[in-house]
Amino acid sequence: MSAAIKPAENEVPSVTNEKPLPNSRRIYVAGKQPGVRVPFREIDQSPTRNFDNSLEDNPAVRVYDTSGPYGDPSIHSDVREGLAAMRRDWIVGRGDVEEYEGRSLQPIDDGYLTFDAANQARQKEKGRLEDFPALNRTPLRAIKGSCVTQMHYARQGIITPEMEFIAIRENLGRDCPTNLSLSNSRDSLQHQHRGQSFGASIPEYVTPEFVRDEVARGRAIIPANINHPESEPMIIGRNFLVKINANIGNSAVLSSIDDEVEKMRWSIKCGSDTVMDLSTGKNIHATREWIIRNSPVPIGTVPIYQALEKVGGKAEELTWEIFRDTLIEQAEQGVDYFTIHAGVRLPYIPMTAKRTTGIVSRGGSILAKWCLAHHEESFLYTRFRDICEIMAAYDVSFSLGDGLRPGSIADANDAAQFAELETLGELTKIAWEYDCQVMIEGPGHVPMHLIKENMDKQLETCQEAPFYTLGPLTTDIAPGYDHITSAIGAAMIGWYGTAMLCYVTPKEHLGLPNKKDVKDGVIAYKIAAHAADLAKGHPGAQYRDNALSKSRFEFRWEDQFNLSLDPEVAREYHDETLPQEGAKLAHFCSMCGPHFCSMKITQDVREYAASQGLKEEEALARGMEEKSREFVEKGAEVYSPA
Amino acid sequence: MSAAIKPAENEVPSVTNEKPLPNSRRIYVAGKQPGVRVPFREIDQSPTRNFDNSLEDNPAVRVYDTSGPYGDPSIHSDVREGLAAMRRDWIVGRGDVEEYEGRSLQPIDDGYLTFDAANQARQKEKGRLEDFPALNRTPLRAIKGSCVTQMHYARQGIITPEMEFIAIRENLGRDCPTNLSLSNSRDSLQHQHRGQSFGASIPEYVTPEFVRDEVARGRAIIPANINHPESEPMIIGRNFLVKINANIGNSAVLSSIDDEVEKMRWSIKCGSDTVMDLSTGKNIHATREWIIRNSPVPIGTVPIYQALEKVGGKAEELTWEIFRDTLIEQAEQGVDYFTIHAGVRLPYIPMTAKRTTGIVSRGGSILAKWCLAHHEESFLYTRFRDICEIMAAYDVSFSLGDGLRPGSIADANDAAQFAELETLGELTKIAWEYDCQVMIEGPGHVPMHLIKENMDKQLETCQEAPFYTLGPLTTDIAPGYDHITSAIGAAMIGWYGTAMLCYVTPKEHLGLPNKKDVKDGVIAYKIAAHAADLAKGHPGAQYRDNALSKSRFEFRWEDQFNLSLDPEVAREYHDETLPQEGAKLAHFCSMCGPHFCSMKITQDVREYAASQGLKEEEALARGMEEKSREFVEKGAEVYSPA
Repeated sequence: MSAAIKPAENEVPSVTNEKPLPNSRRIYVAGKQPGVRVPFREIDQSPTRNFDNSLEDNPAVRVYDTSGPYGDPSIHSDVREGLAAMRRDWIVGRGDVEEYEGRSLQPIDDGYLTFDAANQARQKEKGRLEDFPALNRTPLRAIKGSCVTQMHYARQGIITPEMEFIAIRENLGRDCPTNLSLSNSRDSLQHQHRGQSFGASIPEYVTPEFVRDEVARGRAIIPANINHPESEPMIIGRNFLVKINANIGNSAVLSSIDDEVEKMRWSIKCGSDTVMDLSTGKNIHATREWIIRNSPVPIGTVPIYQALEKVGGKAEELTWEIFRDTLIEQAEQGVDYFTIHAGVRLPYIPMTAKRTTGIVSRGGSILAKWCLAHHEESFLYTRFRDICEIMAAYDVSFSLGDGLRPGSIADANDAAQFAELETLGELTKIAWEYDCQVMIEGPGHVPMHLIKENMDKQLETCQEAPFYTLGPLTTDIAPGYDHITSAIGAAMIGWYGTAMLCYVTPKEHLGLPNKKDVKDGVIAYKIAAHAADLAKGHPGAQYRDNALSKSRFEFRWEDQFNLSLDPEVAREYHDETLPQEGAKLAHFCSMCGPHFCSMKITQDVREYAASQGLKEEEALARGMEEKSREFVEKGAEVYSPA
Repeated sequence: MSAAIKPAENEVPSVTNEKPLPNSRRIYVAGKQPGVRVPFREIDQSPTRNFDNSLEDNPAVRVYDTSGPYGDPSIHSDVREGLAAMRRDWIVGRGDVEEYEGRSLQPIDDGYLTFDAANQARQKEKGRLEDFPALNRTPLRAIKGSCVTQMHYARQGIITPEMEFIAIRENLGRDCPTNLSLSNSRDSLQHQHRGQSFGASIPEYVTPEFVRDEVARGRAIIPANINHPESEPMIIGRNFLVKINANIGNSAVLSSIDDEVEKMRWSIKCGSDTVMDLSTGKNIHATREWIIRNSPVPIGTVPIYQALEKVGGKAEELTWEIFRDTLIEQAEQGVDYFTIHAGVRLPYIPMTAKRTTGIVSRGGSILAKWCLAHHEESFLYTRFRDICEIMAAYDVSFSLGDGLRPGSIADANDAAQFAELETLGELTKIAWEYDCQVMIEGPGHVPMHLIKENMDKQLETCQEAPFYTLGPLTTDIAPGYDHITSAIGAAMIGWYGTAMLCYVTPKEHLGLPNKKDVKDGVIAYKIAAHAADLAKGHPGAQYRDNALSKSRFEFRWEDQFNLSLDPEVAREYHDETLPQEGAKLAHFCSMCGPHFCSMKITQDVREYAASQGLKEEEALARGMEEKSREFVEKGAEVYSPA
């Protein structure tokens, strides 16, 4: 996984004092367990004007909402206070955790050798980042002998509040299985495609029990560190809506850190389901604290990055002790999932020597360097059970990293990649012994015809643990447009069964994404994820397409903008050619002009039928009948001879 | 098909005085027949610097070039003169055409009732467009009793110069079947994926005879009107490289017309293989003349649009006589393919009444309106044989329009769409009786899981005539980003067998594309087409990916930019964070910084091996061996117990 974000610039307005999305309201749907209150966004629509000028209401369209408390205008949020610890009562109420002193902050956590150095840096502009001021609680961990993972509860048959929250969320708050329509289109069900699920079994209605069962089987994970009570539960699994991840993070070369929270908020406003903090360089610990305390979505990290900083960037100096300490540091802060490249085994490294692009995963190359320098298997592999014990004590989920993923079309689906995948499958089984939740990271660069093989192999090798892929990019020849080269692969692999798609921005391979790039990446991936949900026949997907298309057909321009993934851009593009407010009521757009608007002509066709005093279908049917009789009488020639 | 282009604006520099693409040279490869001289672009690369500091050359990368004479800096072109009539000698030399007086220009051709009105308009700014000044030839048509289509020649066993030109072009000028490597990577062939072709039979080397055979079978077309001798031959068929089309055209609401040539040139500079002129409103004839006389790529039109203008926009007043006259008018000008919506049959229209978005094709809705108003089958259908005779006399190819294509996910693959497709299959057979070349237009909006059904049905129903699809868009919910929603579908349907992809710009559904939108649309479709070529295992596709990835891995930044589809954007994105020239030599980029660059670490791994005085693989193998012995001695535990 790669990419950090460039500092916020003028190009895209800050979300700090954001207005709600147009015509949108925040609503909540309550569950049965205490504190379960699931947020959604509802987009109001204007009525349809029929041919007889009567008006017909179009119900509000409800959508999945990743924006957390920031999407609720009634909540005042202060970045220095952090978000409310919504899950705290659930976590403590289970009676299996203890507060403890926790690891004390060390100067090296933020890249300084001494606290003096850190304090001196703080004096300077863009030096040491201020510590998060408001956290007055000590970390939690599992009481010795107990396990606090969602998988553990699931296997015990316990439906946690998190699971109920997720069931409501995945159903978009629908009440009951007898009323499945989410659409405002009268014909929505008739026009609902069934999809092709490739062995996934997506239910018509997600029950809390279904969530529990999927987590128990390891087919889905709920990344939910007990030290991140601010997060709103979400699920990653192929029988649920496809999720997306955005990467943020500072960088050794560029980027300040005081806007880290802003980057996270921007990502989730655009629709990201989880955020990975890939910060490197100084202030990693402080940055992460600010992010987690203000994040309503799960946060992932790659702990080896921070461990490497602690040894001055020298991979060969990494040790298990430093890594272990880093895991605990981050687990206490509340990181929800860790990328662990434990599949980079010594015997696989020579398999990469003849590749076109060698090892392109940062984590993978760090581990490869370590393995070669020591001529040993890495401590991630040899100490995997120790890692499991740590992860289980905080419910940090594994994201087993694909350190040997292909970095080019030429290297796709090669021996190195699949050898590592086999090992990830073995490690998954071990993690499950500890009731640890696991997902598996995937490529990378893969031409279209090799994508399904990747997915199928992953499902088989890793016993259906959720797949989490980066793209894949379907060609290497378009740097600057890799959000597109990869959205193609992401949509396809999402359809085939990938549970979460890690975004790629237009700056991939070239430099640091700015806010516009992040948005472009997130939107491209929302498109890919939604296209996948449609193709799988997810019951919660097509109603939004139907609503938008209905509004388009009826020239309800405002509704068309508001229902789209990016209302601002849709409106802006429309207004570029027809800025007058009146144009938004016009029954045509600038593309074709009034005479050529096909939608208008189709409406004319219907109107014509209506004007005959008949219902349109009858009119057509009657016309057809006459025509058909006539046609047969004339000898039923398919065409008139010239 | 939709969309016209907004007037050129400052945002993107004009191509009129364009510089060649960076590090690129125009070259030509000659054929055996007189005048066959095929243009390519060659991109020079810098050498690879090995660990021992020795340099290793990287050969130039040759790419397909659609830019025509504009891509040759030695050719001076004057828009008022038009391009050289390259094919003229071939056409006349076949001895089956005659010059004739041709139809005389009528004021209505440009939307005026009288020549006086036209002349008055010419006085006003943005009024009547000046006529193209330099054409001193009269139109050609087939001598009575002869047929001048490429299909006709192909069926007679004749390999035309056009066919030889195409064979060389599709092979990227490779000399002979024994030397297939196009790549500069030593491992290119070993790393070449085979692809999955879904029944297409792409040869390792395209011979002129193969081109002839494909055209004779109707599996490929060469759009090449005898009155467009300026065009460089190209082929559309699923056993060849996937092609893309860009739409341009003025519009009744907006856009001036004096920059029409500029739009066409911009599209082909970006990589479009054909251009459709979808102009409406006034000056249609004059605009088209300017475009064709200056276009080195085939030009397509939808003649019903102009016919509709001639009857004041009233669909029901259209007649066969007006339409026929328009066909001849455009055929004499040199239009290479006509979209003909002859499959919109009266009995199919009621099938659209319950759709979410009715009829969205402009042509389709015009025809539907006519059919309903008259309660008759359209003249496109009843007069289809007359149309074939006209097309055959000029070698205008059919693009049989999908007037009933779905305009939303809800309407995909419905009865109306497939009923029309059946008719298009019947019409294809009829057109082939006249040796007319035919391609079939396709959707539209289709969720991923229904795309292959579309392709398979088309191949079966239309006897493998080439498919030419618009996208398809894989979701409706992202107006403003429909170049992406549709690039996903386009890549997939291209892989499955579609021969040409009609682009969609970010402004689709919203307004007129400007130059930036056209470029974004073309690049998205170049990506889709190339991803499809890769997946099909086209032998002329992957070498460019390999070359770019090798340059990326070796930190040859300039080469990486130059080999990409859009060198300017790649460089600009890179320079945004690291503008210094020195950074382009750096062995890292701003994304990860020096310590975290995985490519650098992989190079270190190789260098480490080299420093041991061994070849890297040996070093690794030896290390492995030792390791492996040790591993087994220790009991071959997969992990150390905690």
